[in-house]
Amino acid sequence: MAKKNIYVNGLNEVPLPKRKIEIVERKGIGHPDSVADALSEEVSKALSKLYIKEFGHVLHHNTDETQIAAGCSAPKFGGGTIIDPSYILLVGRATTNVHEGKEIKSLPCKPVALKAARKYLQKTFPNLDVDSEIILDAKLGMGSDDLTGVYKASGHRANDTSFGVGYAPFSITDTITLGTEEFINGPLKKKIPATGHDVKVMASRVGKKLTLTVACAMVDRYVKDATEYKSLIEETHDAIYDNALKLAGSEDIQISLDVNTADDYKKKVYYLTVTGMSQEMGDDGSVGRGNRCNGLITPYRPMSMEATSGKNPITHIGKIYNVMSKLIADDVARKVTGDAEIHVRILSQIGKPVSEPLNCAVELRSLGIDKDPKFAKWKSEAESIATDWLDNIDKVTELIVNGKVRTF
Amino acid sequence: MAKKNIYVNGLNEVPLPKRKIEIVERKGIGHPDSVADALSEEVSKALSKLYIKEFGHVLHHNTDETQIAAGCSAPKFGGGTIIDPSYILLVGRATTNVHEGKEIKSLPCKPVALKAARKYLQKTFPNLDVDSEIILDAKLGMGSDDLTGVYKASGHRANDTSFGVGYAPFSITDTITLGTEEFINGPLKKKIPATGHDVKVMASRVGKKLTLTVACAMVDRYVKDATEYKSLIEETHDAIYDNALKLAGSEDIQISLDVNTADDYKKKVYYLTVTGMSQEMGDDGSVGRGNRCNGLITPYRPMSMEATSGKNPITHIGKIYNVMSKLIADDVARKVTGDAEIHVRILSQIGKPVSEPLNCAVELRSLGIDKDPKFAKWKSEAESIATDWLDNIDKVTELIVNGKVRTF
Amino acid sequence: MAKKNIYVNGLNEVPLPKRKIEIVERKGIGHPDSVADALSEEVSKALSKLYIKEFGHVLHHNTDETQIAAGCSAPKFGGGTIIDPSYILLVGRATTNVHEGKEIKSLPCKPVALKAARKYLQKTFPNLDVDSEIILDAKLGMGSDDLTGVYKASGHRANDTSFGVGYAPFSITDTITLGTEEFINGPLKKKIPATGHDVKVMASRVGKKLTLTVACAMVDRYVKDATEYKSLIEETHDAIYDNALKLAGSEDIQISLDVNTADDYKKKVYYLTVTGMSQEMGDDGSVGRGNRCNGLITPYRPMSMEATSGKNPITHIGKIYNVMSKLIADDVARKVTGDAEIHVRILSQIGKPVSEPLNCAVELRSLGIDKDPKFAKWKSEAESIATDWLDNIDKVTELIVNGKVRTF
Amino acid sequence: MAKKNIYVNGLNEVPLPKRKIEIVERKGIGHPDSVADALSEEVSKALSKLYIKEFGHVLHHNTDETQIAAGCSAPKFGGGTIIDPSYILLVGRATTNVHEGKEIKSLPCKPVALKAARKYLQKTFPNLDVDSEIILDAKLGMGSDDLTGVYKASGHRANDTSFGVGYAPFSITDTITLGTEEFINGPLKKKIPATGHDVKVMASRVGKKLTLTVACAMVDRYVKDATEYKSLIEETHDAIYDNALKLAGSEDIQISLDVNTADDYKKKVYYLTVTGMSQEMGDDGSVGRGNRCNGLITPYRPMSMEATSGKNPITHIGKIYNVMSKLIADDVARKVTGDAEIHVRILSQIGKPVSEPLNCAVELRSLGIDKDPKFAKWKSEAESIATDWLDNIDKVTELIVNGKVRTF
Repeated sequence: MAKKNIYVNGLNEVPLPKRKIEIVERKGIGHPDSVADALSEEVSKALSKLYIKEFGHVLHHNTDETQIAAGCSAPKFGGGTIIDPSYILLVGRATTNVHEGKEIKSLPCKPVALKAARKYLQKTFPNLDVDSEIILDAKLGMGSDDLTGVYKASGHRANDTSFGVGYAPFSITDTITLGTEEFINGPLKKKIPATGHDVKVMASRVGKKLTLTVACAMVDRYVKDATEYKSLIEETHDAIYDNALKLAGSEDIQISLDVNTADDYKKKVYYLTVTGMSQEMGDDGSVGRGNRCNGLITPYRPMSMEATSGKNPITHIGKIYNVMSKLIADDVARKVTGDAEIHVRILSQIGKPVSEPLNCAVELRSLGIDKDPKFAKWKSEAESIATDWLDNIDKVTELIVNGKVRTF
Repeated sequence: MAKKNIYVNGLNEVPLPKRKIEIVERKGIGHPDSVADALSEEVSKALSKLYIKEFGHVLHHNTDETQIAAGCSAPKFGGGTIIDPSYILLVGRATTNVHEGKEIKSLPCKPVALKAARKYLQKTFPNLDVDSEIILDAKLGMGSDDLTGVYKASGHRANDTSFGVGYAPFSITDTITLGTEEFINGPLKKKIPATGHDVKVMASRVGKKLTLTVACAMVDRYVKDATEYKSLIEETHDAIYDNALKLAGSEDIQISLDVNTADDYKKKVYYLTVTGMSQEMGDDGSVGRGNRCNGLITPYRPMSMEATSGKNPITHIGKIYNVMSKLIADDVARKVTGDAEIHVRILSQIGKPVSEPLNCAVELRSLGIDKDPKFAKWKSEAESIATDWLDNIDKVTELIVNGKVRTF
Repeated sequence: MAKKNIYVNGLNEVPLPKRKIEIVERKGIGHPDSVADALSEEVSKALSKLYIKEFGHVLHHNTDETQIAAGCSAPKFGGGTIIDPSYILLVGRATTNVHEGKEIKSLPCKPVALKAARKYLQKTFPNLDVDSEIILDAKLGMGSDDLTGVYKASGHRANDTSFGVGYAPFSITDTITLGTEEFINGPLKKKIPATGHDVKVMASRVGKKLTLTVACAMVDRYVKDATEYKSLIEETHDAIYDNALKLAGSEDIQISLDVNTADDYKKKVYYLTVTGMSQEMGDDGSVGRGNRCNGLITPYRPMSMEATSGKNPITHIGKIYNVMSKLIADDVARKVTGDAEIHVRILSQIGKPVSEPLNCAVELRSLGIDKDPKFAKWKSEAESIATDWLDNIDKVTELIVNGKVRTF
Repeated sequence: MAKKNIYVNGLNEVPLPKRKIEIVERKGIGHPDSVADALSEEVSKALSKLYIKEFGHVLHHNTDETQIAAGCSAPKFGGGTIIDPSYILLVGRATTNVHEGKEIKSLPCKPVALKAARKYLQKTFPNLDVDSEIILDAKLGMGSDDLTGVYKASGHRANDTSFGVGYAPFSITDTITLGTEEFINGPLKKKIPATGHDVKVMASRVGKKLTLTVACAMVDRYVKDATEYKSLIEETHDAIYDNALKLAGSEDIQISLDVNTADDYKKKVYYLTVTGMSQEMGDDGSVGRGNRCNGLITPYRPMSMEATSGKNPITHIGKIYNVMSKLIADDVARKVTGDAEIHVRILSQIGKPVSEPLNCAVELRSLGIDKDPKFAKWKSEAESIATDWLDNIDKVTELIVNGKVRTF
């Protein structure tokens, strides 16, 4: 069996939950950067499925460069108007012409991409009229390929030095941040349909004090006037607060919450939108500038710069290693010990198989005592988990194609 | 009452049906130039209705510059693939910001335009998947206006020397040309769904011999192989021929018909498409380059260069006079004499009301005898018809907005 | 020798100069429709030269669908600002990949097109900063070809019924219309640099009275205030009038002239622009919607709908026959008789060589006496001129590629 | 004086130069992500200068969303061809209409942006013909403003929780990585003009072994055949290696170097390009996905996700704090101690002035001994440096506008 270069060591840092300051951010699914991420990943998944259907395996593509240029709107209480639709440009490349012997088979990559993008928008954003309030364009390079290549991640050799990083478990700050957005864009929508999908949650913990700052675009058609706006914001505040308490559970933490702090009722400044998405008016969006592949932006944790969404899941080491780092860390946290901080870093080795990285470093540190005597046991279990994932790297591809793992 | 400058004279030409050569062409509704015309006019109608709904009258706009850049496809028997969608750019301008006192009302002109265009495509071309096989973009200038202007054609003064021209009645060549396309894109569709909407009918009459040349894009999903293609073309040929005979009625004319003459079965050249529209592969389209507003291209008749589709129906003299010229000629043919050739030309007079042209010239010539004694009677009746239309110019606007007259 | 089907007959109409009403229009080189025509033709010429350089002959292309979407500007006396550049989209297709045996040679068609377009704009419009006041985009389909085809117009067979039409000589109205624009965009520029290139000349002759209406965009940087504007318009008026008199020569005609009639000094309405081109603010442009290939729009003459500019000069019958009709008519007017009205119509015959039309009809009528006794002589000379051109159809291609004939 | 919340503490990590693994990457100025960064920043600087010229201070804008969609090329030894230009879309927004009392002043923001972008490309990439090998488009939202706002960073209050991070001094790995790219795109260009500007330097240090992996696009016109390619790569290798040794100086480190490892001479795979930029063929680019504002990607260091390039330098805390963190760290390294690792993190405080962050944390750790006795002295000096920068935050704006600090 090939050498995996797995190293499990003690973590050379104070675990974050024990440090004084922690900052965590989540850009909700309606934030323009998240929309760009989502469309890139939806297109990649749709292309992967097209390739699997036609040839049994995924062919080369990267669709990780979606760009959103904001539109122009005139929201008003009771229902306003989109003046200029926002413009969404799908950018990337996809194998379009496949040589099978002397024949060339052409694939409908661009139509498939456009359809997947449109479908996601329609399904996800009920307050957006995709047919008239969006211009959807595509510049996808059309590559050629012949069917003699390697079509599994496990068969590829790294041709770049690339890097994946993940950690587990979530701190309480992480949990509340992600859970708050999921609550607003989930259960709360039925109760308060005026809450739009462009939600930004910023959590800043100083010691035991957690300050949650939520910005939530409100949808004008559901708000008849300023008075109703004010009372809806209060209602939203209370619902989010109650949910945050529930997420905190028995954790010893004080929560304070602000919703739409940039509002200024005296100056008639409200966070009011026509579609619940700030891309309608002035906010552009790009892939890879928002959440990392665990759904969060965590400046006090190791993070990868890599844009995970839209990359292909068979040759793109950056994507595969990022996703796998998180899967390994999660498994260690779940199966080995939930009472430690776990960091995983996987580094590729040029010219070697993807399953044989230069270095797969798992770092562990007990949250409780400094030098935990169980470390030796943890070490061997963690090694075995990491080995298992590296031996089954194609499973990562599968999870990605089937949308079973998050990319933003 | 204002002076109308209506002149009815004898026509100084041999009527076309009595001349040796006549050429008439009709680009069907699926031809890229016709698609461009249609989208321009649909957008203008939708905007007109938006303005009427909001303000009671049409505001300034011109949306007559739609451009279609062809896509790329790989048709094949049984069903092929769109590789690159065709790109449709709506171009023009529309009053978007309206000053009402100190307030500015913003209108959703671009969303309305996109929606109208999309709806037309969906409704008209069942073999085209508008969501994935078209990229629909828009560059519409957003003008401002205040509600102090003039909003009826009748209230406008011409600020340009412009020109409208029409004739009636249709010759038998005209009738068969238009009727052939309407037959293929109408009743024949149920019988032979393989016939696509991109149809071009070219009629060339030399004496009593009428040669009809029909090019009809076939839709690949309905044709399983070359044999079926061949037999469908034969079936199509026979159906068109029978219909042409019916259209000819008792007319003394010999018809010969060619369908898809560019096919070359030996070289496996077929007019096969995925969507029934040649814009899918290589054929671009523009407004105003196809049919005139009577539905035909008639190089042996007086024609206007003006692109009628997409122009606004309240200030654009070119559009209004072209449509009205045809309406007057038709009325004269129907109410005064069906046995004459009638030409109508209306010429604007800068600075004067639209209803007071410099010249509204009606020219008449009996098809039968050269100097028909009934001319004096015809003349007075024709004058009265022309006067009536010029007195009711706003009715032309209404007919246009409600889609009761053809523009291509 | 192949049959040419050349028919020379008497013209069955009163010659236009002897009729009461005549209307002629010229859209100057800065009008957005002319800019679109020019760019289409420049691109076609540049591609033709690229093909000739690489392969010795022109390959298939059509670049006749340039679209201009107007920009937005804020002109002011002394020099204003372009706020939003106008957008120019080159549309068409060009043979880009050429199979030479087993090799494929790829050509830089799009770069060559962009360069030709940019160069034309820079050279022609000194008041336009092409680098910042224009967005130049291109959607050119990239066709393939192998080097086994036919590369001369003379070798092609018509696969369509198409049509060319021309006339000669110019009436005095024609001459003055064209000459006026050429004067304004030529010698006058040095004297009055404030005159922009977007010039529209409309001539309407009623009997012996010729009314010239000129609209000329003025360039703001050369006009310091309203007073100077007024005096420049007067100066421009006088210069144009003097030139028109010169063009009229000894002709018995009264000329009246209006310049910028839409101005309203009391309401501070001036035809003021930043670049001298109305596309900077609200005026879109398309190919084939302006001047015919003699440089004029002549509603009282036979005209072709065909967009001549940007079509390829080896297979596109519409382009070749339109240009050739005018060349034949001009030759007859110059060599046979200058004192007649000459119409030429050439009609293709499907499946036959381009040099063997179905019909090349030359119609002649003396301007002087009704049935001129010299007709028999004229007839034989005109036949010989037409035969000569049809025998040398490749010379038409050459004239087009080298820019020796007008297309708009 | 306002409270600055500056905290100087010992760094709770082993300094990176003393750790076993270190990875550093630099995307050269010709990499598509760097091109996107550069154009965004050039546009922001040009707009800032426009605003300063017109109004004395910078107005609101953000132009940080440039997107590059790759083109298509056919490189070959001796000089190949660009087939399809790459497409560059400038995205963002800029204050375009400024209310001064009752007047509105419109600014040429889009023309200025286009000009700045074009100029940068022309000046920086001599092998790229910007006029024909690039399509430059812009979607910049046009905001309005009146001249009553706050126009200095120091006057703004943070309306977001944002974050800046920096470190100093550079490790030897950092120095060699950055210096290698600067050498290739600097002095080496004269010696070996075949080296293109798309250079990627990846450094991976394991203990004392530094592996440098350089990918350098070669420009085909300067390479006559495979033999010359091979020898040029060797020459390039040697030059880079010598330079790296020079950069390493007396440092105890072993350097190994690979250039263009993806080449495979047997299979005729070369890193050959027409323009020296991989965006010509398949590589898209986005803002904020490449180098951080110290010019490097350093996964083993604290990094900000923020896209610094193109953000406005007066209200965008993310940009200002990132740049300032680095300036503080550099100053501490230069003035206080060069023999320590210094991290700086600045965190905004919603609603408070930009100059009063919630937290400005400077962490220091001697590279030499673990608890350096000089720490107390360092601490007070570092506090004073940080205070000084926070008191002079407008100087950061000035440095950015004048291009005196790096953003990528």
